[in-house]
Amino acid sequence: MTERSGNIYANIPAAATDEVFEDLVRTEGARFERIVSTGQATPEGEWYDQGWDEFVILLAGEAGLAFEATGQTHTLTPGAWHVIPAHCRHRVAWTSHNSPAVWLAVHLGPATG
Amino acid sequence: MTERSGNIYANIPAAATDEVFEDLVRTEGARFERIVSTGQATPEGEWYDQGWDEFVILLAGEAGLAFEATGQTHTLTPGAWHVIPAHCRHRVAWTSHNSPAVWLAVHLGPATG
Repeated sequence: MTERSGNIYANIPAAATDEVFEDLVRTEGARFERIVSTGQATPEGEWYDQGWDEFVILLAGEAGLAFEATGQTHTLTPGAWHVIPAHCRHRVAWTSHNSPAVWLAVHLGPATG
Repeated sequence: MTERSGNIYANIPAAATDEVFEDLVRTEGARFERIVSTGQATPEGEWYDQGWDEFVILLAGEAGLAFEATGQTHTLTPGAWHVIPAHCRHRVAWTSHNSPAVWLAVHLGPATG
């Protein structure tokens, strides 16, 4: 693969109806994705259930990340990271309205959606 | 693997003689590392030459990232990311003194040092 670069804060949508998902780059073993949330949440009762491990870090804004197994919702501030193992059901409970929540998600493995 | 979490800005050393390298977490396919630099650089004439792909993002501070192949030094501000392919020789030319440079490096593959 070749050298690639960018800035994760470039062209942040100030507000959008939906969350904005964008691949920054794919490597052989991982997909690097930027997610920008402006108040959205995973629909009530819906859970992400992925077949691969994910590392996610919140870089700006605030968010609540909920896990079905524990019933807990973690409040994330900038710098907070979580490793979400494959099939660990989780949802975004809330995200900040006034300042966009910017996430970097690293999806690991050969089949990452 | 189990769910793991932390904050990349926790316990940032304000100043240190050397750069501080710390693994946040290892997964099957990747090693997630925090690097805190406070003015250090890769010794002149030395290059990193790794056997695996790396994704690196600067989260705080400023830094210069140099590549041997192009002879270019890129000025990195917060949010700047680079994919550094295996055996792409690179060095940290400089880092900010006054505010620590905080990096997240994602080393990809089964053998990541």
